[in-house]
Amino acid sequence: MDPMKIVERQAEQTPSRILMLVMDGLGDLPRYGDGLTPLAAATKPHLDLLAKDGCCGRFDPVGPGITPGSGPGHLGVFGYDPTEYEIGRGVLSAVGIDFPLGPGDVAARFNFCTIDLDGNVADRRAGRIPTEENRRLVAKLRGIAAPNGAEIFVETEAEHRGALVIRGPRLGHRLADTDPQRTGVPPLPVRALDAAARPTAKIVTAFLGAARKVLASEPLANGILLRGFDSLPEVPSLESRFRLRPVCIATYPMYRGLARLVGMDMPPAPPALTDYPAAVRAARDGHDFLFVHVKYTDKAGEDGDFDRKKAVVEEVDRLLPDLLGEGFDVVVVTADHSTPVAHKAHSWHPVPAILWAPGRVFRDSVTAFSETACIGGGLGRMPLRFLFAEALAAAGKLAKFGA
Amino acid sequence: MDPMKIVERQAEQTPSRILMLVMDGLGDLPRYGDGLTPLAAATKPHLDLLAKDGCCGRFDPVGPGITPGSGPGHLGVFGYDPTEYEIGRGVLSAVGIDFPLGPGDVAARFNFCTIDLDGNVADRRAGRIPTEENRRLVAKLRGIAAPNGAEIFVETEAEHRGALVIRGPRLGHRLADTDPQRTGVPPLPVRALDAAARPTAKIVTAFLGAARKVLASEPLANGILLRGFDSLPEVPSLESRFRLRPVCIATYPMYRGLARLVGMDMPPAPPALTDYPAAVRAARDGHDFLFVHVKYTDKAGEDGDFDRKKAVVEEVDRLLPDLLGEGFDVVVVTADHSTPVAHKAHSWHPVPAILWAPGRVFRDSVTAFSETACIGGGLGRMPLRFLFAEALAAAGKLAKFGA
Repeated sequence: MDPMKIVERQAEQTPSRILMLVMDGLGDLPRYGDGLTPLAAATKPHLDLLAKDGCCGRFDPVGPGITPGSGPGHLGVFGYDPTEYEIGRGVLSAVGIDFPLGPGDVAARFNFCTIDLDGNVADRRAGRIPTEENRRLVAKLRGIAAPNGAEIFVETEAEHRGALVIRGPRLGHRLADTDPQRTGVPPLPVRALDAAARPTAKIVTAFLGAARKVLASEPLANGILLRGFDSLPEVPSLESRFRLRPVCIATYPMYRGLARLVGMDMPPAPPALTDYPAAVRAARDGHDFLFVHVKYTDKAGEDGDFDRKKAVVEEVDRLLPDLLGEGFDVVVVTADHSTPVAHKAHSWHPVPAILWAPGRVFRDSVTAFSETACIGGGLGRMPLRFLFAEALAAAGKLAKFGA
Repeated sequence: MDPMKIVERQAEQTPSRILMLVMDGLGDLPRYGDGLTPLAAATKPHLDLLAKDGCCGRFDPVGPGITPGSGPGHLGVFGYDPTEYEIGRGVLSAVGIDFPLGPGDVAARFNFCTIDLDGNVADRRAGRIPTEENRRLVAKLRGIAAPNGAEIFVETEAEHRGALVIRGPRLGHRLADTDPQRTGVPPLPVRALDAAARPTAKIVTAFLGAARKVLASEPLANGILLRGFDSLPEVPSLESRFRLRPVCIATYPMYRGLARLVGMDMPPAPPALTDYPAAVRAARDGHDFLFVHVKYTDKAGEDGDFDRKKAVVEEVDRLLPDLLGEGFDVVVVTADHSTPVAHKAHSWHPVPAILWAPGRVFRDSVTAFSETACIGGGLGRMPLRFLFAEALAAAGKLAKFGA
């Protein structure tokens, strides 16, 4: 049996408070020459102090060798086994823009695209049109009538991206992408992957036909590509699993969506990193688990920008005293996956982590926070969900198992 | 869910090539005095360079504390969970001599033995008769008629060892060994362990009775002992699991048999270690996973010969530049189990491993290849099948999981 089942059973509500700071894509690889990662190179006295006073280790979000998307990565962070729940791109997009997705709703991510005179995709992102342009087009698409008994929602995400949601009785979600993932070929036809999805495919086909007409006169965004059809998975909440009262401090829609999926409260998004400490202070009362998500480490990794990734770590470090205040019994610092600057993409390498809880964790010999230092950390290398168990234990939230 | 199921799903075929060098029974224990293992004591500049540039760790073939036979050990090496598939000794013997074992065939390993005048086993190996002598006796045994509807195959392995295969409809394989595993007692009777094996037991009993007559006049090999009755397990191939085109470079029949069981191509066996580089070069085209098996480390361990085990490592190291050439994106060096010279037997201790793939693996602080150094390696300690996942990831053969 997965030991997390025991963790669920033994979890109890206490006044102690956990702050889990996730620096997205933080994990990296040593660069040639000095062998430093952005994290190792950063000047970050407060993180180093947490590492020194705490216990460090490395964690596999899904499993060794497996590169996680943001969904599986965050499920791991939140103490779930990501192999048990699949969250499609469509669901991520919809919940990420605060769309009130209900059970049975079918959601897909869409891109506005450019279709050439031959009917082939010329640009999968329609020249990355501005978000305002996206809103104008979405307003036009909302005029398309849905068939009897069904509803269609068209929602702007950002730039060329949006979400399409179909609501109606008994609509299967197993549909193939219409996005061919390359240019010079036509969009793929809407195709049901099982019998239950056939009514959905019919609705989507009719919608796309109408959308082509509505968008025909657009110079750039004259087409739509759909991918990641999915319905909400049934994910038990953090409250039901661990008796937690969790809250999310995050700016980016997708991570807010993931946090909502596991039942976190959701105060307004802090506009910038400097607004995080105030947001954390405001959220502290009434919550015993604060998930704080910083996106910019991942962005710098995706851009292959070593210095910027390092600078983001330094900026977070400067905010740390204000962020933590006196208010937390346990602090966890980790990531949802690695995004090495040399790869410019998510990778499979384990993420470094600090677990800080004075007198409650094994104070190992790690004295600074880095991927290399964490190899020698007291937490070892484990699946990421077990870091959640360690945090609950350090917070005194896990009763003894067995007599 | 076992993360290897996700690895299977995300695996994709690419041109990158993996070489997996398995030094059988390599793992050992530090000896008293200088605390060195044969691996640590060996002069092996090329292996040390791989360790320095790569990422090291330790792996449990089956699980902590569990001593694996060659079957489970290699299943772990090949990325399988050895607790899911059982491969009997008889199957290993049969597939290891290229016998075309089919589904439902029942195979057993046999030894020619010496039976004394009282009917007791005097020598379980009939004085280790030469292979040629074995062939002569097998030719005689092949004259024994099988009952209606069944076929009996008698096959030479080497020296006193051979394989017996019974083919027929609905033959159960759960039979007890007839080898008493000691001398001075008679062979055990053939005994079915379940109802399905009763027809098989009848055929085997008749065969053994006839064999006693055929061999009665032999001075040394006048009897047969059977053990490890089994049928082929249904093991999915490496190609079906991971889209690999695997090939086996191995001299010893058993390891060739194990490799065939997971669907590896099988060029002729290189006669000696010095023939391995040529065999690897010849096999490289058309394959993206090369399993290279060296037996002699295990033999030296079984003989309790520290210096010979060390010398085998040194010999492999000298061949390494020629073996690797320029042809591999990922190199793995590991073992199927430990065979400490102090134990003269397989043991449960985790095996050391190097994963080398420039720019793709976490370059840890390990600078030489040894069991002790691997304790501080970036791969940590994990079940052996996950080393396979790490190798696939390092080779760029695993797509991102989830959105």
